[in-house]
Amino acid sequence: MGASGAPAGGSGGTPPAEQDDGPMLDVVAVGNALVDVLASATDEDLAGHGLVKGTMALVDHARSEAIYATMGPTTEASGGSAANTAAGVASLGGRAAFLGRVADDGLGRAFTHDIRSIGVAFEPTPTRAVPGKVVTGHCLVLVTDDAERTMATHLGVASDFGPVDLHAGHLSSTQVVYLEGYLWEQPPAKAAMREAIEAAHANNAAVALSVSDPFCVEHHKAEFLDLLTGDLELVFANEEEIIMLFGARDFDAAVEAVAETGVLAVLTRGAAGSVVVTAAGPVAVPAPPVERVVDTTGAGDLFAAGFLYGITNGLSPEDSARLGGVCAAEVISHVGARPHADLRALAVEAGLFG
Amino acid sequence: MGASGAPAGGSGGTPPAEQDDGPMLDVVAVGNALVDVLASATDEDLAGHGLVKGTMALVDHARSEAIYATMGPTTEASGGSAANTAAGVASLGGRAAFLGRVADDGLGRAFTHDIRSIGVAFEPTPTRAVPGKVVTGHCLVLVTDDAERTMATHLGVASDFGPVDLHAGHLSSTQVVYLEGYLWEQPPAKAAMREAIEAAHANNAAVALSVSDPFCVEHHKAEFLDLLTGDLELVFANEEEIIMLFGARDFDAAVEAVAETGVLAVLTRGAAGSVVVTAAGPVAVPAPPVERVVDTTGAGDLFAAGFLYGITNGLSPEDSARLGGVCAAEVISHVGARPHADLRALAVEAGLFG
Repeated sequence: MGASGAPAGGSGGTPPAEQDDGPMLDVVAVGNALVDVLASATDEDLAGHGLVKGTMALVDHARSEAIYATMGPTTEASGGSAANTAAGVASLGGRAAFLGRVADDGLGRAFTHDIRSIGVAFEPTPTRAVPGKVVTGHCLVLVTDDAERTMATHLGVASDFGPVDLHAGHLSSTQVVYLEGYLWEQPPAKAAMREAIEAAHANNAAVALSVSDPFCVEHHKAEFLDLLTGDLELVFANEEEIIMLFGARDFDAAVEAVAETGVLAVLTRGAAGSVVVTAAGPVAVPAPPVERVVDTTGAGDLFAAGFLYGITNGLSPEDSARLGGVCAAEVISHVGARPHADLRALAVEAGLFG
Repeated sequence: MGASGAPAGGSGGTPPAEQDDGPMLDVVAVGNALVDVLASATDEDLAGHGLVKGTMALVDHARSEAIYATMGPTTEASGGSAANTAAGVASLGGRAAFLGRVADDGLGRAFTHDIRSIGVAFEPTPTRAVPGKVVTGHCLVLVTDDAERTMATHLGVASDFGPVDLHAGHLSSTQVVYLEGYLWEQPPAKAAMREAIEAAHANNAAVALSVSDPFCVEHHKAEFLDLLTGDLELVFANEEEIIMLFGARDFDAAVEAVAETGVLAVLTRGAAGSVVVTAAGPVAVPAPPVERVVDTTGAGDLFAAGFLYGITNGLSPEDSARLGGVCAAEVISHVGARPHADLRALAVEAGLFG
């Protein structure tokens, strides 16, 4: 996909460029490197910790430990929003890299193993762990009976992510640079994002932003709106976030507002599917049915993975959103935010690829 | 349950003794404290590592690292055979303790958190971790498309488990002491098992053994047969293991052989259910249907949990096996060896408790 926002392969139905001629990567995802620590919880548990259902809160080491101590048995699995997206792109057969910061502790080794083992390029800045001080970030994920996830993240070394962690090689040879809104919480990361956007555009790559979470929109509304006027070719948000971002009275008004920016917008609405807003106007795309929703952790991340893989591999925006729905459906059918099934096979089954 | 092998509460339909009068615990489980590291794998992956499908192999640090390096993305969750059983007993509402050895590293803290958070008493001997040398044990679990699991265990400090790790308070106040056959691999653990059996019998508790794995039966056949002549009141094995243990020509012959020992035997046969062998003869108990078998890790452990909870809480051996089936069905419906659902609620749903 070029900086124009058009699908890969250009206009006029020409086939995608050969790998040797075009960028080496489909997507470079930039975000917090986190290991998820998942457990079942009740609404009372959330209230007891002052957590707001469905959102992410940043917590310090002491608060993270206090919440963990009250959690039931946990499962650990690699997470991180943009990292989940990179893993999804790779599972679809795409070429992805991830930029983020881990320490050389157990969680950091697990994170590195997991993302590389699914085929994502990841070459983190070496960072020596200091127990209790310099640690790999982790996200406590409380999954309630309604399959909703509520998160408390201790960033650890992820909060040190900065310009030094940008990988010039990856950034100079990709179709899309995908940025996680969560990064706007940290000044060094914000500086890195600015550099990444410049590098992307200098290399004719498109820049995509996920606004990540209502609290991110609340904190960084002015900056996100500013990014929509020239810095971005693509934006991902859910219904609540896009309404909040534009201070719109309802979803339709938010769609109108984002359409005026000219940025390709991908707006997710849970079970109601998604709306893709292109220059030709908004198109609603239904979500595939899901037999049993177990844990919605990673739903948005995997939707973005499907969309990004589609748009960088010759699918229309509408079919890319369909593929996003297929990927999100897989990840909400089990505990954890990374795909268990072969997403490529699911995409073929859905008739999206020969 | 007394050392006689009769269900809790004694004979003649008298109600179970009040908690204040009887043992404080239903089950003390003794085994290797392990954290599972689970990933999908193919038959070729197993062959490449010389692993035999459906069994467990002990591996050293280097081999564990080599296998891990080739594994896909992993999920980490507490495991260990007897520890899974203790967790299942607690999830059913039973009173359980676990005896095993962990180091004070990340995996050890996760193991301790998880087993305590489900309600199992666990007070391990404090053991300082030394990275790369003294580490909490972990079990690489390769799950193939047929939902079968194949395991490579690096015992770490679990291999130091010995008499010092026996908890006199727990052992002196329980209905059942449940021993994991895997422990017979290690001389210090074997000595501890001998002491645990004596302590159990001195306190009128029953002793149960799971033979754990075909390779354990192969290595320790003579010792296991010897234990069946006076040391055990209860033995758990699957079809393959019990045939191997008695060198029987088929399952029926193995049932006859174990019946002659007078030990209550619980023999599992996967989807075909189980056979309980009491003084009154063998009784076949069907397994409940399972919609989709995802990962059989922990199936035998949770079957044992249901049986032990049942037999120590007033159920007949037959109904205890039914409860075992309910618990096993839950754990094979998802990735990981510990229950996700509330087992007590499932037992009530199955009509096993008011």
